[in-house]
Amino acid sequence: MKREWDLLHTPGPTPIPPSVERSMNQPMIGHRGGKCKELMNDIAPRLKPVFGTSGEVLVVTGSGTSALESAVVNTTQPGDEVIVVVAGAFGDRFAQICETYELKVTRIDVPWGEAVEVSQVEEFLQASPDTKAVFLTHCETSTGVMHPVEEIAGRVKEISSALVIVDGVSSIGGAGIDMDRSGIDILVSGSQKAMMLPPGLSFVAVGEQVWSVIENNPRPRFYLDLRKYRDQLQGGQTPFTPALSLLFGLQQVLHLLEEERLDRVYERHQTMKEMTRDACRALQLPLLVSDEEASSTVTSIRPDTFEAEELRKIANEEFGLILAGGQKHLKGEIFRIGHMGYCRPSNVIQYIGILEIVLDRLGHEFEAGAGVAAAQSAYLKRTREG
Amino acid sequence: MKREWDLLHTPGPTPIPPSVERSMNQPMIGHRGGKCKELMNDIAPRLKPVFGTSGEVLVVTGSGTSALESAVVNTTQPGDEVIVVVAGAFGDRFAQICETYELKVTRIDVPWGEAVEVSQVEEFLQASPDTKAVFLTHCETSTGVMHPVEEIAGRVKEISSALVIVDGVSSIGGAGIDMDRSGIDILVSGSQKAMMLPPGLSFVAVGEQVWSVIENNPRPRFYLDLRKYRDQLQGGQTPFTPALSLLFGLQQVLHLLEEERLDRVYERHQTMKEMTRDACRALQLPLLVSDEEASSTVTSIRPDTFEAEELRKIANEEFGLILAGGQKHLKGEIFRIGHMGYCRPSNVIQYIGILEIVLDRLGHEFEAGAGVAAAQSAYLKRTREG
Repeated sequence: MKREWDLLHTPGPTPIPPSVERSMNQPMIGHRGGKCKELMNDIAPRLKPVFGTSGEVLVVTGSGTSALESAVVNTTQPGDEVIVVVAGAFGDRFAQICETYELKVTRIDVPWGEAVEVSQVEEFLQASPDTKAVFLTHCETSTGVMHPVEEIAGRVKEISSALVIVDGVSSIGGAGIDMDRSGIDILVSGSQKAMMLPPGLSFVAVGEQVWSVIENNPRPRFYLDLRKYRDQLQGGQTPFTPALSLLFGLQQVLHLLEEERLDRVYERHQTMKEMTRDACRALQLPLLVSDEEASSTVTSIRPDTFEAEELRKIANEEFGLILAGGQKHLKGEIFRIGHMGYCRPSNVIQYIGILEIVLDRLGHEFEAGAGVAAAQSAYLKRTREG
Repeated sequence: MKREWDLLHTPGPTPIPPSVERSMNQPMIGHRGGKCKELMNDIAPRLKPVFGTSGEVLVVTGSGTSALESAVVNTTQPGDEVIVVVAGAFGDRFAQICETYELKVTRIDVPWGEAVEVSQVEEFLQASPDTKAVFLTHCETSTGVMHPVEEIAGRVKEISSALVIVDGVSSIGGAGIDMDRSGIDILVSGSQKAMMLPPGLSFVAVGEQVWSVIENNPRPRFYLDLRKYRDQLQGGQTPFTPALSLLFGLQQVLHLLEEERLDRVYERHQTMKEMTRDACRALQLPLLVSDEEASSTVTSIRPDTFEAEELRKIANEEFGLILAGGQKHLKGEIFRIGHMGYCRPSNVIQYIGILEIVLDRLGHEFEAGAGVAAAQSAYLKRTREG
């Protein structure tokens, strides 16, 4: 079913570090026993720096979407006016969730591959002064754009009382956000991206100031009722049986992040981004996103001399190198390389080297070795600077 | 954190078979790739016999509660009249979910430790002819009662058009239900009980006849929208990133169930039930539930010569034998032994032997060896019959 030599470079799920696999592979425990409490009490405070908050980071068993939905159902009521920035498939999902829950949704549509500007959000917010919440995506996984969510949050807070709710699914653990200082109210993430775990857990970081809204919100919710998660967390528990093996793994992930130090983890991702982008330029591969707006966790390429799907097919069949394609109207138009979590500059060297062979097979014109050389050079430059 | 020698005998989470652990411990894959489709297409039809249905068994990443909630939000609208049998903590949870979603809930309160009678449901249903759904618990984990859900479903279908929705979280994989023949419309389960997996996956088996209700239900839902799961399953996919490592494990669990044969799996659970109960009787340990109403997956004991919590403490500290206590008003009153999933008659011999030592420490009067002998005798009797 799976090949031992596969090289998984999609923007999630991502490869699992061996020590995390070993941590997950432990005898099962009861979720109401002392050992589970110890585990939760150990994990809960260590998650806070990863989300840049002193507030609680709640752990929900479910995909990232379940956590996005929890942010919506706990803070809004039918008829509330909200603004959603839609610049890709995941902004669109956030908007769909809001529409499903009968909110009055104003979409700020941004061309796929570009970031929203702070002034755009500002204009929409001034036009709709009753806006209850602004929904943003940090890294838009479908395009590889990283939106300036901290700047936007700061501006929103200056001019309105709207909540700022951010999807950090494909960035948290790979790019830093100072949630508290920037004014972000809720920051959501998942386990299977830069957090180096299999899918199945999601995270909801909730700023202290949001609890009064959540507390007084009459909207029906049960599994995703964040009050239940907060109340149980006081006693080191979860309201419902959690995905325990993933919690075992999470403990080791936090150890890995702390051992490397978060600032260096974020630098490593920045280095992998620059290595990948410089290599693409050297290989005449058009990048979908500008340098300033590009994500440090995923890079999108829009080839103009061959079919994106053809490249993915050869890379997969010949080398087990698994890349992602495009979504929605970018399907067949782009391919995406995930470089996050359990991924290091050495992996970039490897996938760029493989891509050169595949490009050769596709008849794409480029100088042999130029991609790897550019990646090496970007690496040397950044590490000299550091 | 965990001790290598622990013997986990709570009614979930339950121990994981080594081959299932190995299956989960595999390199991560993309959830939109061909390998994941292969996996889902392999799993989906093999789940059907376990739920006794020819309908779809949908796999939701979340605890059992998320699946119970999905049954509620997909089939009901605010104001609908429903009947919920409440004979323990999990019946109560089903009622709470229904109340949260603004249903008019009639609770049939049954003393904890007893099963509901078919005639009781019949009476309530005749008194409320507009009832849209009847919610039942198959094995009430908090007491160890197994309710006659097949008989009740049959009767409900004869006299009304109400849906029958069953919580099979702590029975499916350990006790058989013929969902289609008995008239059960939705049957829900979780991964961490008799299904021998860590927590994190839940299952929703949906009878073909229910889809028109689900299809036409306007209630807002997103992550738990069963239509999305059904539609994606046609293409071997899930709507949201699934807990992939648990799906790897599920494939091996299905292999284990098929290899042993489902009817023999159910017999093994019946044997473990009788061994445990006969041993308790021989050891002068009062059983909470009658023979006819007792579950084949969990046994509750209400001691009258020592404190239940004291027994649990000594068993845990001295032997790593982890048993469950009571919930709500049975807290401190009972202890519960889980014998389901990755558990065999040899494990029953072991925990009964350990219990005898603990009972000795507690000054409980009994004939030394009588518990083990009774368990052995029950085993021999059942295997001779077979």
